[in-house]
Amino acid sequence: MIIVVKRNSEKAQLDTLIKWVKMQGVEVDISVGSNSLVLGLIGDTSKIDIDLVGSMNIVESVKRIGEPYKCANRKFHPEDTIIEIGGHKFGGNNFQIIAGPCSVESEKQVIEIAKAVKASGATLLRGGAFKPRTSPYSFQGLREGGLSLLLKAKEETGMPIVTEIMSVNHIDLFKDVDLVQIGARDMQNFELLKEVGKMDKPILLKRGLANTIEEWLMSAEYIMSEGNKNVILCERGIRTFEPLTRNTLDLSAIPLLKELTHLPVIVDPSHASGLSRLVKPMSLASVSAGADGLMIEVHNDPKNALCDGAQSLTPVQFDDVVKSVDVVLPLVNKERK
Amino acid sequence: MIIVVKRNSEKAQLDTLIKWVKMQGVEVDISVGSNSLVLGLIGDTSKIDIDLVGSMNIVESVKRIGEPYKCANRKFHPEDTIIEIGGHKFGGNNFQIIAGPCSVESEKQVIEIAKAVKASGATLLRGGAFKPRTSPYSFQGLREGGLSLLLKAKEETGMPIVTEIMSVNHIDLFKDVDLVQIGARDMQNFELLKEVGKMDKPILLKRGLANTIEEWLMSAEYIMSEGNKNVILCERGIRTFEPLTRNTLDLSAIPLLKELTHLPVIVDPSHASGLSRLVKPMSLASVSAGADGLMIEVHNDPKNALCDGAQSLTPVQFDDVVKSVDVVLPLVNKERK
Amino acid sequence: MIIVVKRNSEKAQLDTLIKWVKMQGVEVDISVGSNSLVLGLIGDTSKIDIDLVGSMNIVESVKRIGEPYKCANRKFHPEDTIIEIGGHKFGGNNFQIIAGPCSVESEKQVIEIAKAVKASGATLLRGGAFKPRTSPYSFQGLREGGLSLLLKAKEETGMPIVTEIMSVNHIDLFKDVDLVQIGARDMQNFELLKEVGKMDKPILLKRGLANTIEEWLMSAEYIMSEGNKNVILCERGIRTFEPLTRNTLDLSAIPLLKELTHLPVIVDPSHASGLSRLVKPMSLASVSAGADGLMIEVHNDPKNALCDGAQSLTPVQFDDVVKSVDVVLPLVNKERK
Amino acid sequence: MIIVVKRNSEKAQLDTLIKWVKMQGVEVDISVGSNSLVLGLIGDTSKIDIDLVGSMNIVESVKRIGEPYKCANRKFHPEDTIIEIGGHKFGGNNFQIIAGPCSVESEKQVIEIAKAVKASGATLLRGGAFKPRTSPYSFQGLREGGLSLLLKAKEETGMPIVTEIMSVNHIDLFKDVDLVQIGARDMQNFELLKEVGKMDKPILLKRGLANTIEEWLMSAEYIMSEGNKNVILCERGIRTFEPLTRNTLDLSAIPLLKELTHLPVIVDPSHASGLSRLVKPMSLASVSAGADGLMIEVHNDPKNALCDGAQSLTPVQFDDVVKSVDVVLPLVNKERK
Repeated sequence: MIIVVKRNSEKAQLDTLIKWVKMQGVEVDISVGSNSLVLGLIGDTSKIDIDLVGSMNIVESVKRIGEPYKCANRKFHPEDTIIEIGGHKFGGNNFQIIAGPCSVESEKQVIEIAKAVKASGATLLRGGAFKPRTSPYSFQGLREGGLSLLLKAKEETGMPIVTEIMSVNHIDLFKDVDLVQIGARDMQNFELLKEVGKMDKPILLKRGLANTIEEWLMSAEYIMSEGNKNVILCERGIRTFEPLTRNTLDLSAIPLLKELTHLPVIVDPSHASGLSRLVKPMSLASVSAGADGLMIEVHNDPKNALCDGAQSLTPVQFDDVVKSVDVVLPLVNKERK
Repeated sequence: MIIVVKRNSEKAQLDTLIKWVKMQGVEVDISVGSNSLVLGLIGDTSKIDIDLVGSMNIVESVKRIGEPYKCANRKFHPEDTIIEIGGHKFGGNNFQIIAGPCSVESEKQVIEIAKAVKASGATLLRGGAFKPRTSPYSFQGLREGGLSLLLKAKEETGMPIVTEIMSVNHIDLFKDVDLVQIGARDMQNFELLKEVGKMDKPILLKRGLANTIEEWLMSAEYIMSEGNKNVILCERGIRTFEPLTRNTLDLSAIPLLKELTHLPVIVDPSHASGLSRLVKPMSLASVSAGADGLMIEVHNDPKNALCDGAQSLTPVQFDDVVKSVDVVLPLVNKERK
Repeated sequence: MIIVVKRNSEKAQLDTLIKWVKMQGVEVDISVGSNSLVLGLIGDTSKIDIDLVGSMNIVESVKRIGEPYKCANRKFHPEDTIIEIGGHKFGGNNFQIIAGPCSVESEKQVIEIAKAVKASGATLLRGGAFKPRTSPYSFQGLREGGLSLLLKAKEETGMPIVTEIMSVNHIDLFKDVDLVQIGARDMQNFELLKEVGKMDKPILLKRGLANTIEEWLMSAEYIMSEGNKNVILCERGIRTFEPLTRNTLDLSAIPLLKELTHLPVIVDPSHASGLSRLVKPMSLASVSAGADGLMIEVHNDPKNALCDGAQSLTPVQFDDVVKSVDVVLPLVNKERK
Repeated sequence: MIIVVKRNSEKAQLDTLIKWVKMQGVEVDISVGSNSLVLGLIGDTSKIDIDLVGSMNIVESVKRIGEPYKCANRKFHPEDTIIEIGGHKFGGNNFQIIAGPCSVESEKQVIEIAKAVKASGATLLRGGAFKPRTSPYSFQGLREGGLSLLLKAKEETGMPIVTEIMSVNHIDLFKDVDLVQIGARDMQNFELLKEVGKMDKPILLKRGLANTIEEWLMSAEYIMSEGNKNVILCERGIRTFEPLTRNTLDLSAIPLLKELTHLPVIVDPSHASGLSRLVKPMSLASVSAGADGLMIEVHNDPKNALCDGAQSLTPVQFDDVVKSVDVVLPLVNKERK
């Protein structure tokens, strides 16, 4: 950490600052310039509160050199983390496709879709039981009932299940869920992060809709610092000024995350744009950018032609996406297995 | 709601759409143009899922005419809502100043600050007990202990207290808190919104850091639709590309909210910029823009000169802000009382 | 265009509005609802000023159904536009790679790089002569001298050249440039757009750093409406809150543009992130998303090791990117030729 | 400037870097830490290209301590710059109101409005002659003809005139304009900035729609470094995700600019939101935040009731805004004179 001290600071204040810094357990290197005085903090600064330092009245500016996360940091864990769920591996040279309906609606629906996506190559089944909705008047999901239906689909197809948790009160309900999802709106629900950090199962952590990559990794750190090292990151688009897409998929985040962390990174191209016709090109782009997997919405409602255009693909369209993905995978040294 | 149907849509699909719309309990007016066909939905469309409609494959676009919120909507509640907390009124021509430390640190600290801000004119005491922090390694607040200290300060000074709740598990702990704050990161923690919607006490709902005004009002609607009509909105800055301030205070939101809703609206100028030297000008600007109150961070740490420059004001600076606010209040027909 | 009129509007005002609308040459269909009155405008509304309509005091809201651009609109020009530059085709199933130095520095430099990138497969040579720089104290390019050096490189290698124009005063200087670039900061320099719209050569129109896709197409429309139909669009990243990359590459824009317009679309992965190590993954992602070409910065400065890490690739790295791109091209039915 | 060098950098590369830095005319202070090596650059670093340094492959990160602008920097010019235009002063404890129509439409229109706003207290007349419009099909202004009409209004009323220049080709046409405006879309039209920097008249520099405060000051620096020190800054809203207002007025920019620069700063509340009903509250908020003036759109079209709701105020509404502003001015120690 580099602290730039204001010129004309009083010596007494400077001494107090240096004393305080040393109390944080680091060494201080002082560099005197013509216009400023710079303190170089040497040692483990990851637990020093940079906002507090920046707010001190003799500090002109402060800059972190090291990253503020440890468990998630590739510097301290150079090898890719491999997370195995029901025999399917995330990370390394593995590639997994998670698929399923946006919301679980009925036993028939979820089982039909599960079978269809499994046949095409999906290895995990997704489905919303608890649904975060902007409006209290929108369908809130089948909740506990939805979890039961997912478990039936798992029994029927053998596919591990992925579904979103929205409250610390629901931890017990999720004991049979294979991959517990933290949604974008809960990425900084810190009390929930701490609780899932105590669970003995992998967590799928979606990026918040206006969160930086560093904040995202700090949320992973919340989970990991409680003991749960099995975190999979999921890019799902960020909020920008562009109105044509619901969110702007930030694919540069993939290669950046691959440098910064050892955790697996997947992409949700369905929620990112909200437009099913963009799912295929953005899936291929995600694979090319280095993603470790995809999470894709699929529905099976051939009779209700009204919904064809949703962010969900039909099973036939999904099958086509998987086939195309398979062509790109060798280029990035990954394999579905 | 206006639905624009794609040209060349099949008649069978159009009939299905019209049938579905009528099942939602509204009338349909069909307008045929040379390039498009427009359905005007007549009646209560507030519970129709606009995303679902937009995703239908024969729909080119859809536009809501009415707002998707009811309880919070000024159209259905033209009079300002007045919320009284410990004898202090928010809304109408009333103006309140909430002040106190960022975090509750000790009994001495919180009581000293409470007395100081009360003497200057603050009517409610704020203080963080549960602290949302980006890093798991940053101070997380005194938690239950912090609540106790706030209650002691209330006992000592008679000031009602405001503090943030971060988990549905903590509802019982907050039974003696006078104004329960939902922080920016929890603005779309829908399970928490529902629970505080069942509480019998007013809620201070901060704007999410990248949430639109409409999403904010929908979150108020979550609380209100559970029965709790006492919601105070608090603008605290939004995330933009500008790096000099932590957030960009969106003061245009104040007059807009005054049109859209009957709920009181206050501003937190301390968190918005993160710079204490901007608190005074932005407080005055907030009053001028029509805010019903301010929430300001004040600390009392004359010995620890290190922290003078924080987002918190000293009691002396706070006193100066209150005095300046008092000069502007008559201009906007408001009164501290 | 759909105009929603406020309820309680006076009949005289409504009549005036309807009369005004008809004067714009379109028919009006009136739809009366219980809460509002909707006017459907039938005919060519592309030249009606939507902001003006929205500002009328009896108008609650207004929504365009058709797009506000004509020349650039795929609806009126369903076939891909193919633009040929020195025998190299952009658009359709063609794929081109433009490469070269960020700034032209010397004859030796630009010719060496030109030869290197041509050998790897680049078909056009890029190089900055006039450089838009945030600071007046930064190097502003060799200007006219830079253009001469580019022309020498063209003579030497046969490669058509691409370079940025920054002023209407420079139109004559660009008479031998093969593809005239409008930079991001000039995307809404409307006087410049009009002038290049009168040129008899193709224009490379970069997306503005905070411009929507629709605004970008409107800028293409400025050029095309002056008679120059040969516009190539170039996505180069948009400004967001994420600090790790200089800009956020918006790859969803590629498939969206392919729906909305018939113009070729290429991607500049070098400027988007400002990080050379992201150029390869983002190049592959761009191809996968459907881009018609790439524009990549390459330098040749083996002795000056200081600059290795720039947004520019070395010739060796560039060669590797081209080889990887060639593996993906068949997947998207494109070919370099 | 602080340069953090990557650990494990080779000594030869480090030596090259240090040699290069010294060639830029600054001294280097080396600070060696356990995890990094930091170079402190001592002297005038304002002309060192920070992007170039950041791109060097042995550089982990680089941070500027001083600001990259000199002429505009309050550090080197502590006194407020006062700019006098036709006897009206901007800056210091002066406050000016600029008013007039969005576009100049006719002699009668501009003269009537000029007289009305002058009567209410406006001291300068604004009016668009050259209009930057997103669509080539929208009204582009009366151009030269509009300038003539403005000059007639000046002759008639004695008010100095303010109007926007859009091209370096028009410099001569603006020789009788009193305050030359650079619009938001041209804030980084560097060739135009250089040309107006050679003019012998004050420049009104609007903030670009997605430009940071530092970029804005760098554009002022472009003008000032050419010799023209009379630059007035105008905040007019930035682009964010919020759809209810056209732009988000960033009032925190006012007190920040007052710290960073000695130049006068005014606010355009009309363009910021695009909603005339927000002009009054945001004008008062701007004054409270410390602005040196306002620029407000006023129209005079009592017969065409259609336009009442535009971003323009009626003369009566404008008069009310001026009266309210006058109440706030003493609070911020400013005076209209």
